[in-house]
Amino acid sequence: MARIFELAELVHLPFEGDGNLEVTRVCGLDTARAGDLSFVATARHAAAALASPVPALVAPEGVALPGKAVIRSAFPQLTLVQLTPHVQPPRPRKPGIDPRAVIGARCTIASTATIHPLVVLGDGTHVGERSELHPGVVLGDGAAVGADCVIHPNVSIGWGCRVGDRVIIHAGTVIGSDGYGFLQHEDRHVKIPQLGNVVIGDDVEIGACNTIDRATYESTTIGGGTKTDNLVHIAHNVQIGEHSLLLGQVGFAGSTRVGHHFAISGQSGVVGHLDVPPRVTVGPKSLLTRAGKSGEVYYGYPSRPMREWRRTVAHINALDRLVGRLNRLLGRDDDDAPTQDDEH
Amino acid sequence: MARIFELAELVHLPFEGDGNLEVTRVCGLDTARAGDLSFVATARHAAAALASPVPALVAPEGVALPGKAVIRSAFPQLTLVQLTPHVQPPRPRKPGIDPRAVIGARCTIASTATIHPLVVLGDGTHVGERSELHPGVVLGDGAAVGADCVIHPNVSIGWGCRVGDRVIIHAGTVIGSDGYGFLQHEDRHVKIPQLGNVVIGDDVEIGACNTIDRATYESTTIGGGTKTDNLVHIAHNVQIGEHSLLLGQVGFAGSTRVGHHFAISGQSGVVGHLDVPPRVTVGPKSLLTRAGKSGEVYYGYPSRPMREWRRTVAHINALDRLVGRLNRLLGRDDDDAPTQDDEH
Amino acid sequence: MARIFELAELVHLPFEGDGNLEVTRVCGLDTARAGDLSFVATARHAAAALASPVPALVAPEGVALPGKAVIRSAFPQLTLVQLTPHVQPPRPRKPGIDPRAVIGARCTIASTATIHPLVVLGDGTHVGERSELHPGVVLGDGAAVGADCVIHPNVSIGWGCRVGDRVIIHAGTVIGSDGYGFLQHEDRHVKIPQLGNVVIGDDVEIGACNTIDRATYESTTIGGGTKTDNLVHIAHNVQIGEHSLLLGQVGFAGSTRVGHHFAISGQSGVVGHLDVPPRVTVGPKSLLTRAGKSGEVYYGYPSRPMREWRRTVAHINALDRLVGRLNRLLGRDDDDAPTQDDEH
Repeated sequence: MARIFELAELVHLPFEGDGNLEVTRVCGLDTARAGDLSFVATARHAAAALASPVPALVAPEGVALPGKAVIRSAFPQLTLVQLTPHVQPPRPRKPGIDPRAVIGARCTIASTATIHPLVVLGDGTHVGERSELHPGVVLGDGAAVGADCVIHPNVSIGWGCRVGDRVIIHAGTVIGSDGYGFLQHEDRHVKIPQLGNVVIGDDVEIGACNTIDRATYESTTIGGGTKTDNLVHIAHNVQIGEHSLLLGQVGFAGSTRVGHHFAISGQSGVVGHLDVPPRVTVGPKSLLTRAGKSGEVYYGYPSRPMREWRRTVAHINALDRLVGRLNRLLGRDDDDAPTQDDEH
Repeated sequence: MARIFELAELVHLPFEGDGNLEVTRVCGLDTARAGDLSFVATARHAAAALASPVPALVAPEGVALPGKAVIRSAFPQLTLVQLTPHVQPPRPRKPGIDPRAVIGARCTIASTATIHPLVVLGDGTHVGERSELHPGVVLGDGAAVGADCVIHPNVSIGWGCRVGDRVIIHAGTVIGSDGYGFLQHEDRHVKIPQLGNVVIGDDVEIGACNTIDRATYESTTIGGGTKTDNLVHIAHNVQIGEHSLLLGQVGFAGSTRVGHHFAISGQSGVVGHLDVPPRVTVGPKSLLTRAGKSGEVYYGYPSRPMREWRRTVAHINALDRLVGRLNRLLGRDDDDAPTQDDEH
Repeated sequence: MARIFELAELVHLPFEGDGNLEVTRVCGLDTARAGDLSFVATARHAAAALASPVPALVAPEGVALPGKAVIRSAFPQLTLVQLTPHVQPPRPRKPGIDPRAVIGARCTIASTATIHPLVVLGDGTHVGERSELHPGVVLGDGAAVGADCVIHPNVSIGWGCRVGDRVIIHAGTVIGSDGYGFLQHEDRHVKIPQLGNVVIGDDVEIGACNTIDRATYESTTIGGGTKTDNLVHIAHNVQIGEHSLLLGQVGFAGSTRVGHHFAISGQSGVVGHLDVPPRVTVGPKSLLTRAGKSGEVYYGYPSRPMREWRRTVAHINALDRLVGRLNRLLGRDDDDAPTQDDEH
């Protein structure tokens, strides 16, 4: 709970209307109600804001919102995000190591860190200042977590893996499982020991139930600022560039490198051993099969530039008409009609 | 273990043959053996039943099964399901809170609930009558689980999330991870706090290693009676209608709503921000890219009505013939032959 | 750390060069440095090896590597794998049951096994000689793990499931979740009790966050020597043949059997109720929709033999040219141009 004038002061921005108005929640415009603080991105949303019961908004200069308390910002949503912890303070975190946690030998745990019950820290592990490890988190020997991290329940971080500062890892995620490396010998698959680790940069957020394999000999790396969605699979030796976005159920085959600001939509994949330049984008349900060009958007499998893929899809969906034209041209109607023997 | 006449009495159905016959297991017809109780769905399966060593069957009236003990039911498989716990009683559940569980402040735990060792219940959590929480389950502060639920090992249910009655959640599943919401600012991704929750209706079953994200401000909801398979991903703000079926490795992008009796096959997805009417079906390995019509079945990506998709697939698979015809028409054979430069 | 002459002795192979050279790490050629032992597969890699700072190599006879210490082997990578634990010994494992583990009644735990803190073993469970169960592992009642296994953190193995010898299961994996079996009755989905188990053969490796469902009545089986990557889903009643390879995010629908040496690439699936012969291979992002022939490689959905699929893909990608030819033939340019109304 906070008053509008207090919030405006916190971010050094001007406000209009009732500065003493108290807000208790932040919300999107579509579901905002009395007591909420919301935002207006552009003048296009002003009418919706005026029709809403929401009493307070963050809005750009020049967007008229009569009757509302308005904090003026050039970046309204960013300002709303910055104000959120002041309107809805996060639950307080109690520093300290719960006696029901299991702590190995030679660990270095910051006194400001929170180690919840039933956390297991292997020998020689490190946990940085103000980091919070939730119940069921397991750190293998020598694993290190930086400062200001939140590691959610039942995450495991394997031996020797390293996590940067301000990293969030959601529940159920596995960091440092063995890479999938086997040698064929006499019709059998012989395991190649996976001796490397995983290194996660600063300001990374990893979704729930991700699997990030350790490298065979060196490091699988996740660049700083990168954010992954849920159920993402990253194979051994992969290097993800900084500030990348990996959506739900995406998978990377081994030893591929992607540059910074890589973005890939849900249920897509990247084949192994590519060296992808910065700022490549991949559409949904696609498989990136070539390195591609910086700034380009790829779709489909095999992957093609978006424009080409769209044109091809349009042709595919017009095949019925095309075949009809060809049949008319040839003076017959029924020959070569499609059959359905391929369906299951 | 039970006798046929006892079982028939339990479901108030008539039986024929040896009522004193004891059965010790229920089974499908293909692997049934002496001592089993199986079922015959229609007269078509009578020959298989007669050839099987199975001594006892549930079968519709009018299907002759000489020499077998037969319980007569209009819904044979349903009756078999209802009799299963009487033939193979589930392991007894001991109510109570194991002393090795970790219980927060102000929890309300029904005296008939079973809290296994190494469960962690945050402050203010609720567990209803006869519910069972297996080892490694973590409930965040204020999370609530209804009556008659089974929460399997290593499931985490985040703060403030609510689970209805008679819900089963399989191992490794994550309820209430943060939605994937980021704001782009100066080439960086700024986290939008995810302050909503997940609300799961009654009679829901959630498979293993699902990830269901909390809403940004309100609730991600799973309608009553819905069943999800394993490794399903449901993004923030999604609303799944009642009695839906979500098969393995399916994914939903954010803010989509699907109506009741939605059904989607394995490895398929639904794009974000759709409002899908009731009783829409999606085939396997497809991506639903439009809301569609109630009662229709969609396949492919972009998604198309099944009939149209099948016709298109048949055309695609006949392209080699089509190109051949066109080449003959034009009096040349080799021009425009396909090349393989797109493979990887 | 080991000397070349000691390593050569261990595998009974000849060496050349400085036998007293000490190596401290094994590595691939691309990142090898001073102190490493690497390998040369064929003469093609000799130049890279000579240009590398790596002082020691395993190489076939006849590949000249002047100035390097060389162990001669007909299978250089296999030899490197065999030598790895002698160069980089694994962390020592302390046998015994940690007092913070939870042990049920009537368990049989080998005295050489390692049961880490916060493991939960149900009643009547078995753990074989030298097996290691990491923190957070939960074995349901009657579950059995063979000898020389490693079960990584937060794995759950359901009641009655059986794991062979020399099996590795990576973190977060769920063995024995209920199969997805529901009966439709009056527009509701009625759960069919899943009473079978999962049986995993010897020498199997299961990746992280896999979900392997128990059979309805009998056993879901994973054949000996099979290796699965991460986030693989195997439905109830499936039978995977021996020495198969299942890559990341692959899924199997229920009751399918695949023969030995099955191989399936990432993000692919197999439909239910198939009986697939030995040595079938499936490409990436495909759906195997028919049983296929032994030795054949299938791609796409519906699945087709690779050669046919490649030819079809080439035709698809040439559609723009094909339509242009047809338009020229018909003397018009703009009619039937593709539209983009299908995109989202």
